[in-house]
Amino acid sequence: MKRLAYFLAIAAFVFLTQCKNYAQLNNDKLIFYKVVADKIISSALQEERGYKLLKDYFSFGPRLSGSEQSLKALYWLKKKMDEAGFDKVWMQKTMVPRWERGKIEKGFISFSRKFKGRKLNIASLGMTVATPKEGITAEVIEVKSIDELMQLKDKVKGKIVFFNRPFDKTLVETFAGYGGAVDQRFAGPIAASKLGAVGVIIRSVTTKDDNNPHTGVTGRQKDVKPIPAVAVGVQDADFLSNALKQEPNLKVTYITSCRTLPDAESFNVIGEITGSVKPNEVIVVGGHSDCWDLSVGAHDDGAPGIQAMEVVDLLKRNGIRPKRTIRCVFFINEENGSRGGMEYGKYALSSGEITLAAIESDRGAFTPRAFSAGADSITLNKMRSWLPVLRKALIENIILGGGGADVSQIKNAKVLMEYIPDSQRYFDLHHSANDVYSEVHPREMELGSAALAIMAYLISEEGL
Amino acid sequence: MKRLAYFLAIAAFVFLTQCKNYAQLNNDKLIFYKVVADKIISSALQEERGYKLLKDYFSFGPRLSGSEQSLKALYWLKKKMDEAGFDKVWMQKTMVPRWERGKIEKGFISFSRKFKGRKLNIASLGMTVATPKEGITAEVIEVKSIDELMQLKDKVKGKIVFFNRPFDKTLVETFAGYGGAVDQRFAGPIAASKLGAVGVIIRSVTTKDDNNPHTGVTGRQKDVKPIPAVAVGVQDADFLSNALKQEPNLKVTYITSCRTLPDAESFNVIGEITGSVKPNEVIVVGGHSDCWDLSVGAHDDGAPGIQAMEVVDLLKRNGIRPKRTIRCVFFINEENGSRGGMEYGKYALSSGEITLAAIESDRGAFTPRAFSAGADSITLNKMRSWLPVLRKALIENIILGGGGADVSQIKNAKVLMEYIPDSQRYFDLHHSANDVYSEVHPREMELGSAALAIMAYLISEEGL
Repeated sequence: MKRLAYFLAIAAFVFLTQCKNYAQLNNDKLIFYKVVADKIISSALQEERGYKLLKDYFSFGPRLSGSEQSLKALYWLKKKMDEAGFDKVWMQKTMVPRWERGKIEKGFISFSRKFKGRKLNIASLGMTVATPKEGITAEVIEVKSIDELMQLKDKVKGKIVFFNRPFDKTLVETFAGYGGAVDQRFAGPIAASKLGAVGVIIRSVTTKDDNNPHTGVTGRQKDVKPIPAVAVGVQDADFLSNALKQEPNLKVTYITSCRTLPDAESFNVIGEITGSVKPNEVIVVGGHSDCWDLSVGAHDDGAPGIQAMEVVDLLKRNGIRPKRTIRCVFFINEENGSRGGMEYGKYALSSGEITLAAIESDRGAFTPRAFSAGADSITLNKMRSWLPVLRKALIENIILGGGGADVSQIKNAKVLMEYIPDSQRYFDLHHSANDVYSEVHPREMELGSAALAIMAYLISEEGL
Repeated sequence: MKRLAYFLAIAAFVFLTQCKNYAQLNNDKLIFYKVVADKIISSALQEERGYKLLKDYFSFGPRLSGSEQSLKALYWLKKKMDEAGFDKVWMQKTMVPRWERGKIEKGFISFSRKFKGRKLNIASLGMTVATPKEGITAEVIEVKSIDELMQLKDKVKGKIVFFNRPFDKTLVETFAGYGGAVDQRFAGPIAASKLGAVGVIIRSVTTKDDNNPHTGVTGRQKDVKPIPAVAVGVQDADFLSNALKQEPNLKVTYITSCRTLPDAESFNVIGEITGSVKPNEVIVVGGHSDCWDLSVGAHDDGAPGIQAMEVVDLLKRNGIRPKRTIRCVFFINEENGSRGGMEYGKYALSSGEITLAAIESDRGAFTPRAFSAGADSITLNKMRSWLPVLRKALIENIILGGGGADVSQIKNAKVLMEYIPDSQRYFDLHHSANDVYSEVHPREMELGSAALAIMAYLISEEGL
C-alpha cells in the first residue's frame, strides 16, 4: 500500500507539473483579461471601424507594388494612422520590382476543325514575360505535374505546356489544397522552358468553378530563358483538356503585353502604440499592402492588413495601454518579391529592439478559428492557457506552425505567428477578379481584428 | 511525508477518474473512425451532392406551410430519397396552418410637413391579420421594449406602436443577439393590442444594415384582439425614428392583405438507412422543409435540411452501414406552428423505437463549429472523446445545450442536439428576401453534411 501511495504521488507530481504549463494565469488575471477582451470585441463589432475604412482603401484600385495606386494607398494608410493618433507612425523606404500586365491579353484556339476561334479566358502570371506582338501559336501538350512533364523530354520542344492538375478539393484545409497545386504555377514555366517549350498555360489554382483566371507569381531561374506563362479559368481548362482529347493537334494562340520596368521606390507603412513599461519589446502585427492587379485584393491582403491596423486603433480608442509596444506593419511587395518584409527584417535586426512576437494576418478576413505559432511546447502551452480569453473572439486553438512570408523575414523574432481564420472561401477569390469589397463580411472581419488585438495584448502583458 | 503521499495519491485518483470520462475510445477504434470520417469528408467535398440538389429544391419557390409550392417540394424530396436508394422512405401526414401574405403590402408617411409620401419598406409578420382595405392610418409611438410600452398605458390607444430596439451586434453569438430582440416581434403586438393600439411596426430583427424587411411569426393570445403587425427595414426604422423626433405627430399609413385560410394537409418527409444490428434504435437528423415566403429560405432551412438528407446519402453511397438506424426527417411547419415536429413527436412516443439522439440542423449551412447536446456530464464527456474524429470536419467542441424547435418535440429522445455552424452571416439573411441560393457556399455546406454524418455515425456505433 505504501509503495502504491508513493507511485501515485509520483503520478500526481507529473500531473501537477503538466498542469503548471496549462494554467499560467491566476483567476483574477483571467477575469481581468476577459473584461478587456469583451471591451475590445464590443468596440470592434459595434463601431466596425476597420470595415468602414475598406471602401476608401479600395477606392485607389489594385495596389500592385510600384504602381501609382499603390503609392497613393500607402500615403492614405499613413494619414489614417496619424488621424487615429498612433504614438509613432513612419514609412520605411525600399525599392520594389515593378511589373505591369499591359492592355493586351487574349487567348483562343487558332487551329482546329471543331474549335477554331474559341476564346480562352487567360491572365499573365505575375512577373512573367510578354509574348511577341503576334502572340505565340503552338500545339499544346497537357500534363498533370512537373514530373510527368520531365518524362516527355523531346516531345515538349516548340509546344505550349498546359499544366492541368486540379486543386484537391477533398482537403478540408484549403491552404493544403493550394500548396498541392501551386508548384505548377511557380516552377512549371521554368521546367517547361528547360525542355524547350515556347509557352505555358496553367489551370487556375482555385476552389471556385467559375471561369475567372487566378494569377500569382511565377518563378525565374538563372540561365533559364523565361517564357510567357498564363493562367486560364478552370472552365476553360476543362474545355481545353476535352478539346485536346478530340484533337491532339489543335493549336492555341495567346497574346500578352506585360512588362517589367525598373525597380521603383516604395514603402512599408508602420504605426504603433508604444509600450508603457517595456517600450523596447515589440509585438508586430502585420499584413501586406500590395495586391495583384486583377482586383483590389479585398481578402488578399486588403482587409487583413486593415485588421492589423485596427489592433492598434482598438487599443487606442478604448484607452487600453499595453506594457509592451504593439506595432502594425503594412509590408510592401509580398506578392512578387517580399522586399518590404526583408527591409523590415533588416531594421528589426539592427534596431536594438526585441521582437517578442510577429503575427501575420494574410489568410483572408473570415471568421476567426486559430493562431499558429512557431514556438516550443512550454511557450505554446503558455499561450494555450489564454484560450479562455481568446475563445471570446472565437479562437479555438493555438496550433504549432510559423509565420507567413512577411514576418518570417524577422529573423530575430522570438515567436513567429499567423492568424488563422476560416479558409473555406479564400481560394475562390485569391489573386482573381473575384477578390472584391462585397466579399468581406463586417462581423467576420471585425472579430478577426478583435482576436488579433486580444492576442497582441496578452503577449504584451504576459510576455513570452 | 506519508500524509503528503496519501494526499497526492487521492489527487492522482481524482485525476485518473476524470481521465476515464475523456478517453472512451481505444486507439484502434479511433484510427478506424478517422478513416471513416476522411471518407465521408472527401465524398462530401468532392461530389457536392447535397449542394447540387439546392437549385432544383429552390426552383419551387418559397415553401410556406400549406402552399402549393411546399407540397411540390415535399414530393420532390421523397422522390430524391427514393432515387438515392434509402432503405425506407415515407411521408407522415399532418394538418398545417395556411397563412398567405396577399399581394398588397405598402407603407408610407401620410401626414407630415416634411416627410409626407415617404415610403416605408414593410412586410407583414407571419400569422398576423390584414389591415382594412383603406389601410391603417395613425400617429406612431416609438418604444424600445414591451416594458417601456407598458409604462405608457393610456397614451397607446389608437396609435401605431413602433418597436425599435436594435439587434445587439456586440454579442459574438448572433443567436443571442436575436434572442435579445425577437420578443418585440413575437409578444410586442399582443402587448400593444391590450393597450388599445391599432397597429404595430417592428424594426427588422437582423444584423444587416440594408432595408429589406425580415418577417417571422408573431404571437396570438386568447381574448386579445389581433392587430395588423409589420416589420420594417432597419434603414427605414432609423429614418422613422429620426422623423418622429422632428415631428412627433406625423402619421403613418400601411395597407396589408394577408389572410389565414383553413388548415391544409401536409407532410413530414422521412428517409432512413436502417441499422444493421439495432434497427430499433434511431438517430434522427432533421431540418424543416417549410420556410417564410420572402425567399426560398436558402439557409433557413433549405440547405440545412438537405444536409440532414445528405447524412443518409453519404453513408449509403460510401457503403458505410451503421449499427443503428440513422433517419433524416424534413419536418413541416417549423416556422408557424411546429405541427410537423409535434406529429413526429407523437409517432416517436408510440412507435416502440428508441430515439437515442435527435439532432436538429436549423442554424444555416455555414462552416461547422460545434454541436450542442442536452446530456449529463458523462454522456457529454463521452461525446467529447470523439472530438479527435469530429475535428476533421472542423467541429471544435460539444457544448451543453439542447435541441431546436422541431426535435424538442421528441419527448422520449435520450439526447436532444443541435448542429452549430458559424453564425456570423445567418441573421443578415434570416426570414428576408436575402436568404437565397447564392448565399450558400458549397464547401461550407458540404463540411456541415460531413460533420452531421460523422456525428450520427459515431452515436450509432458507440451508443449513448
